[in-house]
Amino acid sequence: MRRFAGVDVGGTKCLGVVVDENSAVVATARVPTPHASELASTIVSLLADMGEYESVGIGVPGLITPDGVIRSSPNLTGAVELRLADQLRELVSVPVTIDNDATSAAYGEWKAGAAIGASDAWMVALGTGIGGGFVSGGMVQRGAHGFAGEIGHMVIEVDGEPCPCGLNGCWERYASGSALARIAGGMPGEDVVARARAGEAAAITVLETFARYVAIGLVNLTNATDPEVIVIGGGVLVGSDELMPRIARHFSSLLYAPEHRSHPRLVAATLGERAGAIGAALLGRQ
Amino acid sequence: MRRFAGVDVGGTKCLGVVVDENSAVVATARVPTPHASELASTIVSLLADMGEYESVGIGVPGLITPDGVIRSSPNLTGAVELRLADQLRELVSVPVTIDNDATSAAYGEWKAGAAIGASDAWMVALGTGIGGGFVSGGMVQRGAHGFAGEIGHMVIEVDGEPCPCGLNGCWERYASGSALARIAGGMPGEDVVARARAGEAAAITVLETFARYVAIGLVNLTNATDPEVIVIGGGVLVGSDELMPRIARHFSSLLYAPEHRSHPRLVAATLGERAGAIGAALLGRQ
Repeated sequence: MRRFAGVDVGGTKCLGVVVDENSAVVATARVPTPHASELASTIVSLLADMGEYESVGIGVPGLITPDGVIRSSPNLTGAVELRLADQLRELVSVPVTIDNDATSAAYGEWKAGAAIGASDAWMVALGTGIGGGFVSGGMVQRGAHGFAGEIGHMVIEVDGEPCPCGLNGCWERYASGSALARIAGGMPGEDVVARARAGEAAAITVLETFARYVAIGLVNLTNATDPEVIVIGGGVLVGSDELMPRIARHFSSLLYAPEHRSHPRLVAATLGERAGAIGAALLGRQ
Repeated sequence: MRRFAGVDVGGTKCLGVVVDENSAVVATARVPTPHASELASTIVSLLADMGEYESVGIGVPGLITPDGVIRSSPNLTGAVELRLADQLRELVSVPVTIDNDATSAAYGEWKAGAAIGASDAWMVALGTGIGGGFVSGGMVQRGAHGFAGEIGHMVIEVDGEPCPCGLNGCWERYASGSALARIAGGMPGEDVVARARAGEAAAITVLETFARYVAIGLVNLTNATDPEVIVIGGGVLVGSDELMPRIARHFSSLLYAPEHRSHPRLVAATLGERAGAIGAALLGRQ
């Protein structure tokens, strides 16, 4: 059986997988994310723990150029103008590809997860921030410079909460995991979900507010690109039995001309934390 | 020389063109837009005024299905579930296609106007409302249900100005021609531009406010899809010597991580009011 390796480089850990020809995961490994200066050698030793492979795909947070340079990555210490693809090609003898981590996760969910078969889809990851990737016209789209999917920085409140990116009112200030905790006055998202499940009115109000903010961003993506399906993933969704129905209800009530149009389906991601690594492996296989 | 007809159906007038093999306009005609019940017959007589043609493309405002049904069109009286393509096919003997008017205009600017050669582009029309169309991965994209490009209804202010669509804070409440007049306290946009050109401080403030709102929506489109070029058209831009530089300045200052990324080019549309009809003709030719 042929084997294809993928690595998802996160802010705290690097998660590796090897998938077979059917996109099934046949090996996994993980290691803490090092300083950028040791990222290539760390990835190579991670790969060595997973056996044979005939290609490597890497998913990295931040702005990645088509030739595999990390231009900037707020969550990777030292990663500015880092020529990661070139570094890896000196260390391994198989083809190497690098993509944005959200693009990789989107590709994973599209090829092997919740969006299989869709010609137009968004994959939205609600984590510490909000990342995304999209498929349009049956192709995964990276944009003209490889920077598509920075949807956490769509402005939904012109003079709203300041964002580290320099803008005000970015979607991820209102609809990410950290935003949920902020709306809840500092209470962790899991606790809010647990209290809402127990029927606590204040927690339910927080989830309703949060779900409306999530839905507003999904409406913006829908009005811009009209997807068939929107896949929602990320740590926030661990409480999806409390959140997804609320997000879906707000989404339906907010969508432009809802009586005359087909709604995108909202579905939960199915690959979990492996989506980025699986997608990177499948992109590397191409 | 082969000849291809296109008709742009507007809220007040229908504009027809015939283009040749080089996309050059060789005939034009116009007629007031009738009630939806007479739209097909009116289009046929408009076409008769322009000589021979071997295909017809129509651009229509509102939500159009892939098989040429106008599902709803707020600006066309009586156009609900109107089977315009079927009606036209009974009246003319050449192939007929129907698309959204903004998609048609986007296609025109992409194939024969300001965005020639771009693989990823947005065309944004600032008129009474805001419409748009986009090209991604070298293809014009209509979305899963033909409704892509409803960008005027991206929310930029969660509890902002009410919009007839039912949402609050839609982009077109802040960045369309009618929004410019509202921001100016009722003064027509042309007058604001003229006063700003004469150096009147209050008018300049209005244009700065308006340009910032325009830029915020362009930032949202850029962060979502990373275009190479954004073409801006529509009646508001008649004063583009006063507006485009202001929009461009706000756009540059607002863009996420500007020091590490290539900016999309902002350019003015070049086909003017004919963009929709030319694009419809070129789509009909396909």
